[in-house]
Amino acid sequence: MAVYTDISDEDLSAFVAGYGIGEVLSCKGIAEGVENSNFLLVTDQAPFILTLYEKRVDANDLPFFLGLTEHLAAQGVPCPTPVRAQDGQVLRTLSGRPAAIVTFLNGMWPKRIQNYHCAQLGRAMAQLHVAGADFKLTRTNALSVESWRPLLDACQGRGDEVLAGLTDELYAELDVLEAEWPGNLPQGIIHADLFPDNVFFRGENLSGLIDFYFACTDQFAYDVAICLNAWCFERDGDFNATKARKMLQAYRDVRDFSNAEMQALPLLARGAAMRFLLTRLYDGLNTPENALVTPKDPLEYLKKLRFHQAVSGPGAYGLD
Amino acid sequence: MAVYTDISDEDLSAFVAGYGIGEVLSCKGIAEGVENSNFLLVTDQAPFILTLYEKRVDANDLPFFLGLTEHLAAQGVPCPTPVRAQDGQVLRTLSGRPAAIVTFLNGMWPKRIQNYHCAQLGRAMAQLHVAGADFKLTRTNALSVESWRPLLDACQGRGDEVLAGLTDELYAELDVLEAEWPGNLPQGIIHADLFPDNVFFRGENLSGLIDFYFACTDQFAYDVAICLNAWCFERDGDFNATKARKMLQAYRDVRDFSNAEMQALPLLARGAAMRFLLTRLYDGLNTPENALVTPKDPLEYLKKLRFHQAVSGPGAYGLD
Repeated sequence: MAVYTDISDEDLSAFVAGYGIGEVLSCKGIAEGVENSNFLLVTDQAPFILTLYEKRVDANDLPFFLGLTEHLAAQGVPCPTPVRAQDGQVLRTLSGRPAAIVTFLNGMWPKRIQNYHCAQLGRAMAQLHVAGADFKLTRTNALSVESWRPLLDACQGRGDEVLAGLTDELYAELDVLEAEWPGNLPQGIIHADLFPDNVFFRGENLSGLIDFYFACTDQFAYDVAICLNAWCFERDGDFNATKARKMLQAYRDVRDFSNAEMQALPLLARGAAMRFLLTRLYDGLNTPENALVTPKDPLEYLKKLRFHQAVSGPGAYGLD
Repeated sequence: MAVYTDISDEDLSAFVAGYGIGEVLSCKGIAEGVENSNFLLVTDQAPFILTLYEKRVDANDLPFFLGLTEHLAAQGVPCPTPVRAQDGQVLRTLSGRPAAIVTFLNGMWPKRIQNYHCAQLGRAMAQLHVAGADFKLTRTNALSVESWRPLLDACQGRGDEVLAGLTDELYAELDVLEAEWPGNLPQGIIHADLFPDNVFFRGENLSGLIDFYFACTDQFAYDVAICLNAWCFERDGDFNATKARKMLQAYRDVRDFSNAEMQALPLLARGAAMRFLLTRLYDGLNTPENALVTPKDPLEYLKKLRFHQAVSGPGAYGLD
């Protein structure tokens, strides 16, 4: 849940007057995006999303994020397009914060994942990977394998408050991940956070990808691995091989997925599980007990990690 | 900030299909209303507000609230109108909660109060008081004078953690309020929570009154007293008599404000200050220290209370 910066009417009117998007009819804070304040801004022309960037996003990264979505949208990837102000800028200032207006995407994120969601996701993710190829900027993945040990260190052994033995188990896994992490797979722009709440559908059709604030330059197959974890496990913890197959088949319709990428998938999926397990663990340990935000369960990702540790190869995912 | 109930796509589609309002394009949780989950629901016909009633609102009161706004809107008061489903109902069930769809009001609430806001508010409040006259249901004001002593008792003397001597000061004030509280002033439907964030403007014109979940049957002048406190003090704590005069003049253009009501205003304003002071104090003492919601400052209302204690009569407000 975002902290909402209050915007005065006068500031908002003056800000919006800098764009050719009509008169403001309404502006409501919305419960979308954890890192920023997001508002649904309705003018007499169209709805838009107004984002004020709060401290958790590094202002130096904003040209990358805004430039990337502008580039991807121009290539036909359904994502929010920054609106240029009349002075040509996409990143301006409102209520003392960096601010941008982006186009509004219809659709809703799926609460219960069906097979067709996974197929549509696979296709859109591959389109994103292909469309990012000629984007000029790069951004290091600040949450890749090098970051995990410092993150676990920062938990100061308190993982055992969540589950006895957890800290040792994670350090042992880190040893494997650091030793075996691949570095030569095809890479480019990845979304790195394509969870269901960042993917909109209208009916059975994918209508938008949002929240590019973890996007970075990394191996494409790692994005696929993140989605295997986020989309292909059922609520009871079971892996659904049909969903994985649907996702990867649709991906391959758009972009080749090499044998080397396929063979690396179990390890990448372990790494992807580790990354979300660690941020959830750290956030959970550092969230006040009575806060209104319920920390996400790190143990959901421990189950996924253990599942991938046990597989013999990508065939176990129903993939070939 | 509301707790947002997640609604599954299938549940939402099935629910909305029960109304003749078109296909759902988007549904986003909005940061409006503390007591309920509110969503901005956009269909291919229009935007609406979808409300799921959480535990803090008594379900037995919902027919009063929904019936009242339907009645007021029919009388021309700009407030959200409940949309009737095809079965004729306004109150239905979604995700296991009572739920209603109401019309969307354009406009934004004023962050910095100008004189014209107060004039428009006075007129709209009087229209509300007049329009409520032939509404058939009644609802007791659960936060009127009888409730204040139990509320202060429930703070268990901990008011002194906020300010030394506060508890004794409030008990002494309660003695006066209980002894002198008027009972014979004209009464009917009042909003009882007409703070700036519940009043929308488009430019200089009032476009909507929202959030009727404290509405009740009580003395009209008490509603005026609440607004004197909420709209006519500057941020530095000074009372702005011009704003009070603008508000009351505009009110009187629509509804008589008798001499008896005028004379009672200082005491009613003390009571209104006590009511918000006490709920803020109680909520502040019972909010976890690290919660994301910042409790509103009870001492803002202590200053207002002391101001009204010191006035010699309504003339001190610039009123006559």
